[in-house]
Amino acid sequence: MDTSALPLDPAGIRAEVDRTIDSLLDTVRAQAADQAVLPLIEELRLFLAGGKRIRPVLCVLGWYAAGGTDTPRPVLSLAAALELMHASLLIHDDLIDRSQTRRGRPTTHVSLAERRRAQTPAEEADRYGADAALLLGDLTMTWSDQLVRTAVHFTPRQLNDILPLLDRLRFEVLTGQYLDLAGSGRPDGDVEAALAITRLKTAHYTIERPLQLGTLLAQSDPALLTACTRFGIPLGEAFQLRDDLLGVFGDPSSTGKPVLDDLREGKRTPLLAIAHGRATPAQRAVLESLVGKADLDTDGAGEVVSVLERTGARATVEKMIAERHAAALQALDAAPFRPAAALALRRIAAQAVQRSA
Amino acid sequence: MDTSALPLDPAGIRAEVDRTIDSLLDTVRAQAADQAVLPLIEELRLFLAGGKRIRPVLCVLGWYAAGGTDTPRPVLSLAAALELMHASLLIHDDLIDRSQTRRGRPTTHVSLAERRRAQTPAEEADRYGADAALLLGDLTMTWSDQLVRTAVHFTPRQLNDILPLLDRLRFEVLTGQYLDLAGSGRPDGDVEAALAITRLKTAHYTIERPLQLGTLLAQSDPALLTACTRFGIPLGEAFQLRDDLLGVFGDPSSTGKPVLDDLREGKRTPLLAIAHGRATPAQRAVLESLVGKADLDTDGAGEVVSVLERTGARATVEKMIAERHAAALQALDAAPFRPAAALALRRIAAQAVQRSA
Repeated sequence: MDTSALPLDPAGIRAEVDRTIDSLLDTVRAQAADQAVLPLIEELRLFLAGGKRIRPVLCVLGWYAAGGTDTPRPVLSLAAALELMHASLLIHDDLIDRSQTRRGRPTTHVSLAERRRAQTPAEEADRYGADAALLLGDLTMTWSDQLVRTAVHFTPRQLNDILPLLDRLRFEVLTGQYLDLAGSGRPDGDVEAALAITRLKTAHYTIERPLQLGTLLAQSDPALLTACTRFGIPLGEAFQLRDDLLGVFGDPSSTGKPVLDDLREGKRTPLLAIAHGRATPAQRAVLESLVGKADLDTDGAGEVVSVLERTGARATVEKMIAERHAAALQALDAAPFRPAAALALRRIAAQAVQRSA
Repeated sequence: MDTSALPLDPAGIRAEVDRTIDSLLDTVRAQAADQAVLPLIEELRLFLAGGKRIRPVLCVLGWYAAGGTDTPRPVLSLAAALELMHASLLIHDDLIDRSQTRRGRPTTHVSLAERRRAQTPAEEADRYGADAALLLGDLTMTWSDQLVRTAVHFTPRQLNDILPLLDRLRFEVLTGQYLDLAGSGRPDGDVEAALAITRLKTAHYTIERPLQLGTLLAQSDPALLTACTRFGIPLGEAFQLRDDLLGVFGDPSSTGKPVLDDLREGKRTPLLAIAHGRATPAQRAVLESLVGKADLDTDGAGEVVSVLERTGARATVEKMIAERHAAALQALDAAPFRPAAALALRRIAAQAVQRSA
């Protein structure tokens, strides 16, 4: 039976990726040089219970899009490695942002601090939580690399294609995070600069590169790589713009994180940049006095939200999302992908831009 | 001419490793997606200006010890990758320890904060410095991996041998750092527990594994691996025990770090554990009230030092170093290493245990 036209099921891919991660963590447990480190592995498992697995799913879909069949173990290893890399980066990112909540539960440094509180005073426990989360992020990247290294079972052609791209992906996302950090707390009206961060932090990292990595496993074809870019960059921008809107207007019970976090951090999002550029002097005073302030309260956030609405920034970002979604679908129609994979990508695109969590 | 009996020159190896790192960082600069990230690369170069390069030198000596000749580029890449991994871990370790000085200059997070101080208030600059150092540590590990990945030019036999060992090395050192963190501030009389941390944090990581990696590049021989262990574990313990003594009794103008740091952190060193085990009630009260206190001053440190002397802990640690040095040399005599490499290892062993910096 020819299955090439059947839609591919992201839930099935996710289950296979999760089994790969579980199996790696079982191996890691068995390799531990000291039992004291096991609570860190358990903490990572709790963290991994949440999450959308969008990067590994795209990697596997890239494999199918470029003509791959079944899902060989090395493809799953690479997909799972992307998820562990992501976990490592998020654990560190939550430390940098001092976030208290992610995916509806305490962030890793908060959870580790809570475990310690029975033994030590609160301040010491908090410091321990932050330091242990830093090391757990480093360990998680080690385990991600461990999965990539099982990719030595790939052919030299595959290795030569994917390894440099993997290095590039990591450099890109960390550069995006650094730009975020370097510019935080001082949002301005520069929409292009904010979009450049969005591209590095999300569009390359979350959509384009995972898909490219999957296609490269199947075959080395520049037309496929270009198609991934044409689909992935607009979709990745739309994905992040939706994230920015959810961070301010979303329902915390769905998003799993408090609404105030994004505004307190004052990250340079296109949303804030557009509002800044269009604000009246009074509105600009609101943005400048409240955004990026660690002690911002609900009333203050309400004032900022009102400026985001009244300047039309929210509506403009919704329009930008719709335009980018359309561009991504147009690119998908022109892409030399197998139909079943293209169909699955179309569904993922819809979820990425219309989600509420 | 047969050069197999000539002594190998660590200074020459170091220069080649440094050229390899410089060349990688030049590549990384050219690959940067945004110029804003360049100061981070410069910060790493400043960090790398110091350091003994003991791990890459041992890796290259392992290669020679097992019969390798010349120094092929992949051997240098792996050696340089070990140094960048070390830099990444130290940048994060300095953050965890809130250290202000390393290698005679400000630590990375302090230096990054200083650059920022012209623009922002001191507290914000400090937070920026810590967050940017966290990301720079992550970037540096990425670049270390990038060097390892150039090792795809190795044979499948070499890859299968070295990659799992590299994963293990990273897991070991991070486990050691975590044990350090989890037990800090509460030193007790458990000398064996303190030695176990020493083995993970230093003996495997600094001596045994780098040497094993080098021998594995040349050939896959269990007798060589065992010889590396028999030489590396006692020497690694001696190296760390010397470090512990220098941290308390060393001359800061030679060690490049303040004497108070180690005592303020209260890490579980064998030195402190021995003193604890032998202390009179009055001496134990001194240790318990002063070690691990962030506000320890010079007078307090003087009291602790006096306890370390009077319990004989310092003299015992000197004796432990000498015993381990002797055991390492005995293992070296029995090792199936090429004579020129064995001679170079003998010299490195002497420097590792007798150094003042």
